[in-house]
Amino acid sequence: MRMVKPLARLHEQLRKLPGIGSKSALRLSYHVLDMRREDVEQLAKSLLEVKDHVHLCRQCFNLCEGTLCEICEDENRDHGLICVVEQPQDAAAMERTKSYQGVYHVLHGVLSPLDGIGPDQLKIRELMRRLQDDSVREVILATNSDVEGEATAAYLAGLIRPTGIKVSRIAHGLPMGGDLEYADELTLYKALENRREL
Amino acid sequence: MRMVKPLARLHEQLRKLPGIGSKSALRLSYHVLDMRREDVEQLAKSLLEVKDHVHLCRQCFNLCEGTLCEICEDENRDHGLICVVEQPQDAAAMERTKSYQGVYHVLHGVLSPLDGIGPDQLKIRELMRRLQDDSVREVILATNSDVEGEATAAYLAGLIRPTGIKVSRIAHGLPMGGDLEYADELTLYKALENRREL
Repeated sequence: MRMVKPLARLHEQLRKLPGIGSKSALRLSYHVLDMRREDVEQLAKSLLEVKDHVHLCRQCFNLCEGTLCEICEDENRDHGLICVVEQPQDAAAMERTKSYQGVYHVLHGVLSPLDGIGPDQLKIRELMRRLQDDSVREVILATNSDVEGEATAAYLAGLIRPTGIKVSRIAHGLPMGGDLEYADELTLYKALENRREL
Repeated sequence: MRMVKPLARLHEQLRKLPGIGSKSALRLSYHVLDMRREDVEQLAKSLLEVKDHVHLCRQCFNLCEGTLCEICEDENRDHGLICVVEQPQDAAAMERTKSYQGVYHVLHGVLSPLDGIGPDQLKIRELMRRLQDDSVREVILATNSDVEGEATAAYLAGLIRPTGIKVSRIAHGLPMGGDLEYADELTLYKALENRREL
């Protein structure tokens, strides 16, 4: 017996999603059979709505529903402080700290020449255009600390420095609650290098 | 910043699925943004199709698209041999062995008085009706080997025996390739008890 066709088709599609293997996809497919029709309908609708109603903010390229995101529209945020991140997820993580009061700029990727991703594939030109506004005082580079993230940060720092705007990089070191014994060497090296006088 | 609404809604719904935690749901939600519109559309369609076009076989209550499943319709299968399983997934697992040539009967659950599931909530009456056909020679009870599965098998054996039809239970013992050293006691006990003369 082959699997019933609709189930096999759903299984095939779920399997392609990140982090979902063949067994999980199978389990999910059978689960759909047990769900209420209205819940399945709602899920199908939500999938399409994400695709159709989530856009990029015209200014910072974070996700939004209209033309400007909530943060760019918020007059209580400090528009003179721009935090540059790779992805919308990163801005969301930053927001969860509830401590950042500036605005964002989402690059939508990192420089990665081997994958054919150069400055033109990222929202770098758009960032430089934002910096022409006299009100911008500081740009915080918060790309990841892997090779591409570091390279992108270095590239951006080189571009921004001539404008006279302050450029900073988020700190790297031991994670809070992290145990020295179990820290990897690179993290420990960075933590030593970036030590602060007390 | 709260998450953009469509994304938050999708995240909420994905989180409810079995085996998908908050982080996986978030990752999947963001992934949908990067998928092609047509793929998202296809996924949404497949979800609804499973719900709308997968029915239960009128005879064995396995999953099917029409009124009878492929196996019940197949004249090359042995219709005198009925394998009773808990769920359609179990029949599918059995089919993967490619060695079973009989037909199935899917109970859609097991006896579980504490959850209010008695014989009337399962496809037991329908099984007994099938057994009135003189052509049935043997019923193989292939419910799981947990407490409910064993109790259901015992209950069914009691019902079927008076009809004179042969009733059997699938074997339990050490899994193939299994190591005696690591087998749990109950499995080992069953393996000893069900030893075969060579």
